Amino acid sequence: MTPTLKDVAERAGVSRSAVSRTFTDGASISPKMRKKVEKAAAELGYRPNFLARSLTTRRTKLIGLVSNNFHNPIFLEVFDLFTRALQERGLRPLLVNLSNETDPEHSVQMLTQYSVDGVIVASSTLPPAFSKAFKDKNIPVVNTFGRYASSPDVHVVGIDNVEAGRTAARELLARGYRELAFLGGPEQATSTQDRLKGFLEEIGKLPEATVTLSFAEAYSFQAGRKEMLRLLETGHAQAYFCGDDVLSIGVLSAIRDAGLNVPQDIGIIGLNDMQMASWEGISLTTIHQPIKQIITSSVELIAAMLEDPDRYPEARLFPCRVVERATLRPKLAAP
Amino acid sequence: MTPTLKDVAERAGVSRSAVSRTFTDGASISPKMRKKVEKAAAELGYRPNFLARSLTTRRTKLIGLVSNNFHNPIFLEVFDLFTRALQERGLRPLLVNLSNETDPEHSVQMLTQYSVDGVIVASSTLPPAFSKAFKDKNIPVVNTFGRYASSPDVHVVGIDNVEAGRTAARELLARGYRELAFLGGPEQATSTQDRLKGFLEEIGKLPEATVTLSFAEAYSFQAGRKEMLRLLETGHAQAYFCGDDVLSIGVLSAIRDAGLNVPQDIGIIGLNDMQMASWEGISLTTIHQPIKQIITSSVELIAAMLEDPDRYPEARLFPCRVVERATLRPKLAAP
Repeated sequence: MTPTLKDVAERAGVSRSAVSRTFTDGASISPKMRKKVEKAAAELGYRPNFLARSLTTRRTKLIGLVSNNFHNPIFLEVFDLFTRALQERGLRPLLVNLSNETDPEHSVQMLTQYSVDGVIVASSTLPPAFSKAFKDKNIPVVNTFGRYASSPDVHVVGIDNVEAGRTAARELLARGYRELAFLGGPEQATSTQDRLKGFLEEIGKLPEATVTLSFAEAYSFQAGRKEMLRLLETGHAQAYFCGDDVLSIGVLSAIRDAGLNVPQDIGIIGLNDMQMASWEGISLTTIHQPIKQIITSSVELIAAMLEDPDRYPEARLFPCRVVERATLRPKLAAP
Repeated sequence: MTPTLKDVAERAGVSRSAVSRTFTDGASISPKMRKKVEKAAAELGYRPNFLARSLTTRRTKLIGLVSNNFHNPIFLEVFDLFTRALQERGLRPLLVNLSNETDPEHSVQMLTQYSVDGVIVASSTLPPAFSKAFKDKNIPVVNTFGRYASSPDVHVVGIDNVEAGRTAARELLARGYRELAFLGGPEQATSTQDRLKGFLEEIGKLPEATVTLSFAEAYSFQAGRKEMLRLLETGHAQAYFCGDDVLSIGVLSAIRDAGLNVPQDIGIIGLNDMQMASWEGISLTTIHQPIKQIITSSVELIAAMLEDPDRYPEARLFPCRVVERATLRPKLAAP
């Protein structure tokens, strides 16, 4: 039989409250008493009952980690960083797969049943209504990779996607490309819309620059490849800003199959700078999204919300930068 | 305030027990009574308190999903399939990151604190002592991708890695390769040892066939690339059986950088058949490990153990098959 708190109290010759306080972070207990309890607990192989404690504290330490894309390699890094950061704080990452989920209410119901203390929605493609639905049920929520808004409904941690779009345009224009193209992720995703907005804004400043638009149906290799194969049937632009790195890798594959070369015939710039972008043989020029800082900050924020659920919503935005590898031609020399 | 079971009972004009039974799978309750309770619960926005119920049933429905490799893209598929399969059964996948963890006792302590009902160790590189440690604490455990043993300590679901090694050797020999090489994963991993055993066994049958051995330090792109770059300094074999697909992709990158061609100069066969192996531009010939069947079966088994924790340990092994793509030369014509 599993030893109980009562067994430990009896063996140590102390009150149950003393045992409980020994195993509660920050509770008051004398060193002598603690020593007695710990000795008895070790002898019995006792471990504090997380469930019983949760009923008292009303805390489960479970954090729902919600994702809807298990086809994008960037999420391996995302899961790795989130699980480490949560574990370090004694929080428990409950991985929730919302692939194909369209109903925010159903997600809320699911997470409520899981008795999570908070939720991290790690997605740039789930509609903002998902994060909002948790907030409406008073569940602390952080939307990592979410949309920046000047008066956000919920906490958002990520990048300024409009600025990322501008950065991509500036980079392509600086390299002399004039026939530009945007090959975005899913059209309805806020990240796609924002990146496109910034991209068009910057290109609009240069009258001779042109731009064409298209959208892949998902952030995946096959979606990027399929869309680029379709485009190549009727010609191509000089350079493409792709929605993210995995789309870019699909696009590169389509270009090679068409017998064209990167960057000689077509330039490509991605977004994310996931590990695979640096793999030799891919060497993708891309816009670095500071994933590690974003995730550390998201976990800080959800932990802070557990202490103060009414914390005023904030947007934490991290700057991006271009990482030059091998898929764009060199910058023009200064005149 | 969150409505309680008592509130629902009062509103419905029924006993608390009736409300409790309404929300307990398999509990006896008349359709009329259930209807009353569900109506009152909906009106109040009541949801059953998972924690309170857990204390009664002593079940949390939490399943620890343990991994120690977040650098191998195969794990995105593994996490996707596990989360779906567990969610479908109303189980909750708690993702546990054991990267850099070497102490089985510490893992057990961590998972015990999480109050998991069971643990799935999804790893072919964690020593068997990890799974055994959970069993010793009477925590139901399944070792997915674990080592087959004729009298297993714990439930194992996966492939027969010795047979996979034989399959690789037969495939290479059938294509006329005679100078073979094994470029395995971490040397101490049981999957590496078993694959090597079968590989050598089969090659040993052909006196003129030779084999050289080396090991990458991890199942990762960079580890495969680094090991192959080292080998290429002093020549190369005709064909390599690589520990898995991500190692193979690293090896392919090293070979291209050395100015050599696959399969003209060197043949490569991997193992897993992860999605990326089929990406155009990679087109890796590999041994398909039936991940989906393995994971479905693992979840069935952990669910069965929750009902019967003393269930006799079994090994469930699934057959592998070669998937031919573009990294081996054609088979020899029959004489």
